[in-house]
Amino acid sequence: MTNSDAVEWPQGFVAHAGHAGLRQSGDDVSVIASERPAVGAAVFTQSHFAGPSVLLSRRHAADQRLRAIVTVASNANVATGPEGERNAAELVGLVAKLLGVPDQEVLVSSTGVIGRQLPMAPLRTHLGGQPAFEAAPLAVASAMMTTDTHPKISVREVGGARIVGVAKGVGMIEPNMATMLAYLVTDAEVGPIELDNALRGAVDRTFNCLSVDTDTSTSDTVAILANGAAGPVDPDEFAAAVHAVCLELTEQLARDGEGATKLLRVVVGGAASPVQAKRVAKSILNSPLVKTAVHGADPNWGRVVMAVGKNTEHAEDQAITPEGVTVRFGEMQVYPGGTGEAELAQLVEIMRRDEVEIGVTLGLGEASATVFGCDLSEGYIRINADYTT
Amino acid sequence: MTNSDAVEWPQGFVAHAGHAGLRQSGDDVSVIASERPAVGAAVFTQSHFAGPSVLLSRRHAADQRLRAIVTVASNANVATGPEGERNAAELVGLVAKLLGVPDQEVLVSSTGVIGRQLPMAPLRTHLGGQPAFEAAPLAVASAMMTTDTHPKISVREVGGARIVGVAKGVGMIEPNMATMLAYLVTDAEVGPIELDNALRGAVDRTFNCLSVDTDTSTSDTVAILANGAAGPVDPDEFAAAVHAVCLELTEQLARDGEGATKLLRVVVGGAASPVQAKRVAKSILNSPLVKTAVHGADPNWGRVVMAVGKNTEHAEDQAITPEGVTVRFGEMQVYPGGTGEAELAQLVEIMRRDEVEIGVTLGLGEASATVFGCDLSEGYIRINADYTT
Repeated sequence: MTNSDAVEWPQGFVAHAGHAGLRQSGDDVSVIASERPAVGAAVFTQSHFAGPSVLLSRRHAADQRLRAIVTVASNANVATGPEGERNAAELVGLVAKLLGVPDQEVLVSSTGVIGRQLPMAPLRTHLGGQPAFEAAPLAVASAMMTTDTHPKISVREVGGARIVGVAKGVGMIEPNMATMLAYLVTDAEVGPIELDNALRGAVDRTFNCLSVDTDTSTSDTVAILANGAAGPVDPDEFAAAVHAVCLELTEQLARDGEGATKLLRVVVGGAASPVQAKRVAKSILNSPLVKTAVHGADPNWGRVVMAVGKNTEHAEDQAITPEGVTVRFGEMQVYPGGTGEAELAQLVEIMRRDEVEIGVTLGLGEASATVFGCDLSEGYIRINADYTT
Repeated sequence: MTNSDAVEWPQGFVAHAGHAGLRQSGDDVSVIASERPAVGAAVFTQSHFAGPSVLLSRRHAADQRLRAIVTVASNANVATGPEGERNAAELVGLVAKLLGVPDQEVLVSSTGVIGRQLPMAPLRTHLGGQPAFEAAPLAVASAMMTTDTHPKISVREVGGARIVGVAKGVGMIEPNMATMLAYLVTDAEVGPIELDNALRGAVDRTFNCLSVDTDTSTSDTVAILANGAAGPVDPDEFAAAVHAVCLELTEQLARDGEGATKLLRVVVGGAASPVQAKRVAKSILNSPLVKTAVHGADPNWGRVVMAVGKNTEHAEDQAITPEGVTVRFGEMQVYPGGTGEAELAQLVEIMRRDEVEIGVTLGLGEASATVFGCDLSEGYIRINADYTT
């Protein structure tokens, strides 16, 4: 587990976090930059309504030469048309000028309300001044937050190098090839292809296995920068460390899902394919009836078999039968067999934990998947019924 | 709009509603029966965990000769194994004996908690006695309820005949080829094929366009019985009347969704195919962020474009572009163009109505679909976090 306060950037990385005035109080703009040339890799939302920030960043990430990432919090700059495109480009230009790097080496992310133009005047004033680059990862992670209740940070050592990751996101989270905002930076010396493979391999088993509310953001971005300051590292150890950082950030995101009181992990095994395992796991993870049962610490396994049973759209799911399925809460099997009064008390204890794991086997094959989410509480409703346009 | 209290069964139909003791108070068992031979048609859940009641009823409905439907409320008899199958068969036998009809002409439905055996002793005592057949549709609709807050009834005249429909269901509702429990009975003289076509045609545009919480019940059943007592009717008028009854019941189900405070109707037009129109409409209808915005009377159209944009799995959705899409709340367009302060006040008024309609056009073709659901409130969480196994 990462101790957020103590985390420092890897060698050759600096950052700025400041208050440009997009929200009433608190930092709302941040920049992470490498002092030396770096390679990068990034994945973005697949939403048809991806905003100008994502579209521009996707172009800049194409050649994998990246030096900096600027993030604006509280405005998504999505569904903003040509003016939104001009604003994203100007934002990138301001940061590139500040750092003395080409525009093409700067990524831009914006997160918050959809359908509003970025307030460029305060951003020009703030970034046009002499913003200090003295922010620690904690300050950047905090400046990225919207309805997050706390900053998300993860760090791993690999050889003589370090990987530091920061992330934000609590709602509108069912990533599709990417998640909300997550950035990793490392001083390891890594080639662009190796870096891209490590990121995509990790994202697929971490951020892409995360769902808070089945809603896919228009701004999802995960990026990694490697500046080589610490020299080469073992590629497998590096990939494993990238995965560990992505996994810790994913669990932090799930645990802080809007209104969440606990982390929900669903493990599906015995599936005919990894795709089926993930599909069935997601259908359990996203079932409002399972999520509310977890919230109420109710070992209602009937809702889990319901969520397994409703997968009827895909051909390979036709092989699912009640006889082939097993269900467990934590370490206790509940189906088949059901639960007597004795087990019930023990089960309620398991359901009361701040991490609940539901395990299902389908008896069809060897494939498995683990997905991450949270319970569904009144808090989610309050936050989203009141979070106004 | 149907005045439930005044509704009587069509000619030749009688019903029983009584308290067998499955729940502490209130009727929990009901039987609808035709005094004369009748033809029937039915559609059932596609869930892999369909219970013994559904499996047995599916066999009995196959030859379309049906006389009676028995419903037990508060126990779903699902995931109950061989004992559950024996209990469903015995229940059918008790009702068949009571009515002096073959077992094969009786449908059985059970709804409630999953994973518990039916308490057969009280059911034997109750149905083995001389239960009176003097229940009106309102009494039967009430005896079917679980967490429903009120009974659901609809009636239409067609020629000299009548169609009466009763339904229940407030949660675990995203029907897949069927919905929760809905029964229609008519004294019209209709052939089995015509009856089946009328039912399936109506179900597809009504119950199958309903979603409260994306969760598909293991017990979904929709059935219609026609005993011909009123003689023949015009087939098209009959189909239209069946559709009208199904539609009214669907809107009653949506409006009474667990925790619901209003009916949400989503209309998607300009789609490339009816399947795409329904898929995009469902993604809006089921978005927790759209549902909570509707609950908060917040005209947050950014969440609607998000929900449109997240449809990335199917090939034909790749053609969806921000430029091609329009969004309206009620009669007011909000995208493109956005909303000034003047419109905002008017929009909030629209969002405060007890029926909210969201209209989206995709600009891809001529196909359209209308789907029915409700807002997402703290009430849904309270009901489902506490509804215990």
